[in-house]
Amino acid sequence: MQSFSDLTGSFESRFTSSLPFPDQPTALYEPCSYLLHLGGKRVRPVLCLMACELFDAIGDDAWYAANAIELFHNFTLIHDDIMDKAPLRRGQPTLHHKYGMTAGILCGDVMCIYAYEQLAHVRKNLPQVIQLFNKTAIEVCEGQQMDMDFETRNDVSIEEYLTMITLKTSVLLACSLKIGALTGGALGDNARKLYDFGKNMGIAFQLQDDLLDAFGDTAKLGKQNGGDIRANKKTYLLLKAQENATGDQKAQIAQLLATDAGNQKVADMLALYTATGADKACRDAMTHYADLAFANLEDVAIPTVRKEPLRELARYLLVRDK
Amino acid sequence: MQSFSDLTGSFESRFTSSLPFPDQPTALYEPCSYLLHLGGKRVRPVLCLMACELFDAIGDDAWYAANAIELFHNFTLIHDDIMDKAPLRRGQPTLHHKYGMTAGILCGDVMCIYAYEQLAHVRKNLPQVIQLFNKTAIEVCEGQQMDMDFETRNDVSIEEYLTMITLKTSVLLACSLKIGALTGGALGDNARKLYDFGKNMGIAFQLQDDLLDAFGDTAKLGKQNGGDIRANKKTYLLLKAQENATGDQKAQIAQLLATDAGNQKVADMLALYTATGADKACRDAMTHYADLAFANLEDVAIPTVRKEPLRELARYLLVRDK
Repeated sequence: MQSFSDLTGSFESRFTSSLPFPDQPTALYEPCSYLLHLGGKRVRPVLCLMACELFDAIGDDAWYAANAIELFHNFTLIHDDIMDKAPLRRGQPTLHHKYGMTAGILCGDVMCIYAYEQLAHVRKNLPQVIQLFNKTAIEVCEGQQMDMDFETRNDVSIEEYLTMITLKTSVLLACSLKIGALTGGALGDNARKLYDFGKNMGIAFQLQDDLLDAFGDTAKLGKQNGGDIRANKKTYLLLKAQENATGDQKAQIAQLLATDAGNQKVADMLALYTATGADKACRDAMTHYADLAFANLEDVAIPTVRKEPLRELARYLLVRDK
Repeated sequence: MQSFSDLTGSFESRFTSSLPFPDQPTALYEPCSYLLHLGGKRVRPVLCLMACELFDAIGDDAWYAANAIELFHNFTLIHDDIMDKAPLRRGQPTLHHKYGMTAGILCGDVMCIYAYEQLAHVRKNLPQVIQLFNKTAIEVCEGQQMDMDFETRNDVSIEEYLTMITLKTSVLLACSLKIGALTGGALGDNARKLYDFGKNMGIAFQLQDDLLDAFGDTAKLGKQNGGDIRANKKTYLLLKAQENATGDQKAQIAQLLATDAGNQKVADMLALYTATGADKACRDAMTHYADLAFANLEDVAIPTVRKEPLRELARYLLVRDK
């Protein structure tokens, strides 16, 4: 069994060089290459490879599927960055900021299609693999749309928020694991358990992200904390604080949301998150989904020792301070 | 054998109602539905159905493939309209003009994914069908990029122009025919011949489009003629005129390109197209590719009578005044 860092290294060293991008048109493929070389944690393709290795040696099918998943993820990043008007990604200019909006749209499109091109090389269980990939890709778009809708809505429920992060983030992690398992020849029940593991881990990961953005240490995060608060982003913490707040607290939250971004706004909102118990509720929810995830992994019917790399990765994603 | 208009009617009546779009999120699916209900000639899916019927009765595989092709085509229209900043499509507001740019990007994305979702239902020859679809989809993106690149280039050759229209327009027509043939169980050689038929027909169609835009009758076109000239668009006519022009004519063309759009600009440029022989060259090229297309169709090894609907459609597309 290979560790998370072993597999990340192996994936990184073959990923971009294994892609069949031609040289021309340069204005299409150079930006694609730029983005793919910005790096990233490569969590999704490595989950795919690890899930395969639970059941069989990692073969061509798993490598192609891992490429497809990482390409799809990067396609969504390119288009999300346009929609979010984001200037930076991994400390570098976003693709559309560097190459323009037309390039952003078209490079995203062609990267999505290359994801399918790579996926079509999978031989084992191809129809099942493609159907899951399609279902997931549609869900990711729906999650992104919900996230956009939330920006202008004032009646978002916690349940809707959990649905949104499930669609936008978790299902692709779950899909990566299940497709990896399918390329390794896993039987239905084990593949489903891994899917659930990924889904619950993804929800826990996003809640952890909300907590770190609010309460994390600026030095460790590598960015100022409170970014979500400054942007009035509807996170679990804000929604829960609004739900739990007394009349006075509700008014204070509403007033803070109307206040310009600044350190005082962050400090005051954090105090309200604590006073309303939203921080504890978010930590509890995070622990709940993390526990579910680890239980799903236990349920996969293979020797425990083989699951250690996945358990290690889950701990790395869920027990973190940045 | 069903005629073009029969099959257009059948496709139209089942297309949108057969798509598995859910209701939610409304902001994602309502714009998709809006665009798909704007109509269009549905040439590509009908080519797919016709090609299937050359070899076998039209079954589920062909219907799914036809849906996939029409969805893919509409996805490219949505994103092209954003890149071209087009306000109108089929006389109605373009999707991004009506619903905003975020909707334009995300609805295009999800429509592309639904194209793959529909395609994945094909049972016969699925790997071959998906591989051709992927190759074609990549080529369409490359053609769009070349078209964008041409806007700011002054050294575009006729050969590059033909490559661009082949990628942007023809290969999807060719792919529609070949996939239809594959769902009908066609053997390799016949499927290839139909692909070539579609490719040459597509090139002839685009050259005809260039001619009509320049010399067509405004009343019959339903739009003012000379749109390409007003926009300084690099068409076969302009490139050929520049290639054939004497020193004086070259200067006149350059001067006209620097002139504001107006009826005089159109009239003067048309006179130069005629004086340089560009109009005749374009008509000759159009006839050349049309002849190739009809010869490709003749070469398909099935009884001539069965090909009549496709021949009729080709005549409709190539011998037209609007």
